Amino acid sequence: MMQKLLAEGLGTAFLLIGVVGSGIMGAALADGNVAIALLANAIATGCILYVIITTLGPISGAHFNPAVTLAFLLRKEISMGEAIPYVIVQIVGGILGVWAAHIMFDLSILQTSTTDRTGVAQWFSEILATFGLLFVIFGGIKNRPDAVPTLVALYITGAYWFTSSTSFANPAVTIARGFSDTFAGINPAHIPMFIIMQIVGVGLAALILPRLFPKD
Amino acid sequence: MMQKLLAEGLGTAFLLIGVVGSGIMGAALADGNVAIALLANAIATGCILYVIITTLGPISGAHFNPAVTLAFLLRKEISMGEAIPYVIVQIVGGILGVWAAHIMFDLSILQTSTTDRTGVAQWFSEILATFGLLFVIFGGIKNRPDAVPTLVALYITGAYWFTSSTSFANPAVTIARGFSDTFAGINPAHIPMFIIMQIVGVGLAALILPRLFPKD
Amino acid sequence: MMQKLLAEGLGTAFLLIGVVGSGIMGAALADGNVAIALLANAIATGCILYVIITTLGPISGAHFNPAVTLAFLLRKEISMGEAIPYVIVQIVGGILGVWAAHIMFDLSILQTSTTDRTGVAQWFSEILATFGLLFVIFGGIKNRPDAVPTLVALYITGAYWFTSSTSFANPAVTIARGFSDTFAGINPAHIPMFIIMQIVGVGLAALILPRLFPKD
Amino acid sequence: MMQKLLAEGLGTAFLLIGVVGSGIMGAALADGNVAIALLANAIATGCILYVIITTLGPISGAHFNPAVTLAFLLRKEISMGEAIPYVIVQIVGGILGVWAAHIMFDLSILQTSTTDRTGVAQWFSEILATFGLLFVIFGGIKNRPDAVPTLVALYITGAYWFTSSTSFANPAVTIARGFSDTFAGINPAHIPMFIIMQIVGVGLAALILPRLFPKD
Repeated sequence: MMQKLLAEGLGTAFLLIGVVGSGIMGAALADGNVAIALLANAIATGCILYVIITTLGPISGAHFNPAVTLAFLLRKEISMGEAIPYVIVQIVGGILGVWAAHIMFDLSILQTSTTDRTGVAQWFSEILATFGLLFVIFGGIKNRPDAVPTLVALYITGAYWFTSSTSFANPAVTIARGFSDTFAGINPAHIPMFIIMQIVGVGLAALILPRLFPKD
Repeated sequence: MMQKLLAEGLGTAFLLIGVVGSGIMGAALADGNVAIALLANAIATGCILYVIITTLGPISGAHFNPAVTLAFLLRKEISMGEAIPYVIVQIVGGILGVWAAHIMFDLSILQTSTTDRTGVAQWFSEILATFGLLFVIFGGIKNRPDAVPTLVALYITGAYWFTSSTSFANPAVTIARGFSDTFAGINPAHIPMFIIMQIVGVGLAALILPRLFPKD
Repeated sequence: MMQKLLAEGLGTAFLLIGVVGSGIMGAALADGNVAIALLANAIATGCILYVIITTLGPISGAHFNPAVTLAFLLRKEISMGEAIPYVIVQIVGGILGVWAAHIMFDLSILQTSTTDRTGVAQWFSEILATFGLLFVIFGGIKNRPDAVPTLVALYITGAYWFTSSTSFANPAVTIARGFSDTFAGINPAHIPMFIIMQIVGVGLAALILPRLFPKD
Repeated sequence: MMQKLLAEGLGTAFLLIGVVGSGIMGAALADGNVAIALLANAIATGCILYVIITTLGPISGAHFNPAVTLAFLLRKEISMGEAIPYVIVQIVGGILGVWAAHIMFDLSILQTSTTDRTGVAQWFSEILATFGLLFVIFGGIKNRPDAVPTLVALYITGAYWFTSSTSFANPAVTIARGFSDTFAGINPAHIPMFIIMQIVGVGLAALILPRLFPKD
């Protein structure tokens, strides 16, 4: 269990290092062209996702995401006693990852984001982004388990572009990004609605996905 | 059969979300540099294609494209009774995907494209793009079935750049993109010729591909 | 044999469509930023290389390149009677591919490039680029045959950037690009030296690679 | 042993050709937009890493990096008598690769970098970058050995963006880049601290990774 929690914590820390660090670097170098910054951000995030899911998947299942842990709980493939510590280390690991990114870019460690991310369009994006993520994970597990790291990495790289919220789709990532007033940040006041929408996405997935990918 | 139709509809919806959504985001952020918008558009489309073909291929064959369904029909690998509902859900799914993209980006849902896409050069592009897509699919099925998702994803990502039409190569995608007055749109008046050229591409493929990739 | 020649001709045509077409599109959209045009060019070329090698490799070996055919001839893995028609269809296919790209972009079909590509630095680049390509092919065949399409695709995508010639590394491609006065063109006066250097690269590979990748 | 040293030397030379060459090309074409130059640099580096690890891994283990060789030494999977010549050919190969890149771009061969890369933020970046590299390598070896080339390539492509140092994470690369006053260069005065931090990263990995990826 300790090994699983270490994997979940370290993996989520790396994920946030990837998301927040590449956002800082992209924005610093892109000379005002936000599309180039987002391209760097999306590519770097896809890269780190492939890496952490491939290496840590066999240990903890590579959730790194309370929405994913919740989805496995609803499928009764993880117990409540395991799910709760999973979520805690995901959140703690995510925040530590953000702080590590700040240190690497010589920024003050403790920050609070002032980037507004709100409104019906972005909320709907988060529902769809989270549903899509679970679609990809459970479809991959059912039909091509060895491709799950690639599936998640490419899905998120694409979803950065085809959703207006840039697809957080992950409550731990959402909370952690509240702690960074940089490119990837989110105003803490807007975090709760993002998380609620992500949970709605989990519910939608629980309703629809069993028809497409029934358990064997 | 219902599961297959759900797969075709949902997959095509995701495809159009990817194409239209990333086009909107890319154009909004690229600050007038169309090449960067198209790069984002091409990468996001490749990502979503890999994802939907990998996860849904084992269910429905992952056509998401009436031209592909027609090609399988000509090869007698799908019956007419199955092909017709396939095409219907592909078109309906595609339009729903466009509308979902509009909601995600806070645009009015019902739109009609005003982007002209016409002329001999683009028509020839669509013939070649569709021929190439079928070349990739049937070559992959014959020689490396597990690589089909990667083949289609990379082919389309490349073909965005090496055809002047940006490779629609798909009647359902063409129709659906008529419903979006955004980066990826196509003036409905220009849709019929695009679809005719795509069907010519299917015919060309039916003529040439059996010599390269004979059925076992 | 006819099937092999069809594969070599069609594959090389697709390769040139990818190289020349994406160069035209990239340069047209990049608004003067050559790096973005080259990025599109490099990505599209990598995509089409993966596609044609994966689908046609099992038929013809997927040379699409007289330098590769020469290397196989030196290893006695192809006969002279087969190598000569291979090279002819590669060149013819390449030129047809360039013309197809011109038609797709509404340019006059017959063109002669005026882009100078000459000098010791670029000549040395072609030696190294061709050596590297053969290194990748024969290393892949020896140690990871299923990865050859990915190896060649990624090698060339990278080599666009790390050689000053953008890595033609292929006499058929070099000749065909002489027929296009667009982004990817090469002044015909500069073609012979490029081809000579590519042959030097083949010789270098014949000398060094057997030590690294001895035949079983 | 000679074959292994040839592999390590040639592989590291190719790595530096990729890193330094693409940096020169990217900076030359990007018209002052550093993000686009870095994107080309990161993609080309990832491409060449995949290529050299896939082809040469079965021969020498594909270290190309004294920090990796040191990590294997600490795990007692390479002897001191083998590790020392490994490190020597890595450094020599890397410098030769830089010089080859200079020739290819018509620059004076002998150069000394004047690019400052120093400060606590970049030092911390190098610790984390090296730790992450070893995490990826040993996690891959344990849980998905065939994915190691992809893991390293994607990790470094991402790490270019999410660390402020752009992730040298390799003493041979660091030394060699001191010899190039181009985009990828590093002022030789700043090399020792980078290498010390990379060694700290190796130590950190030796402490933590056995808990995650115990030897079988």
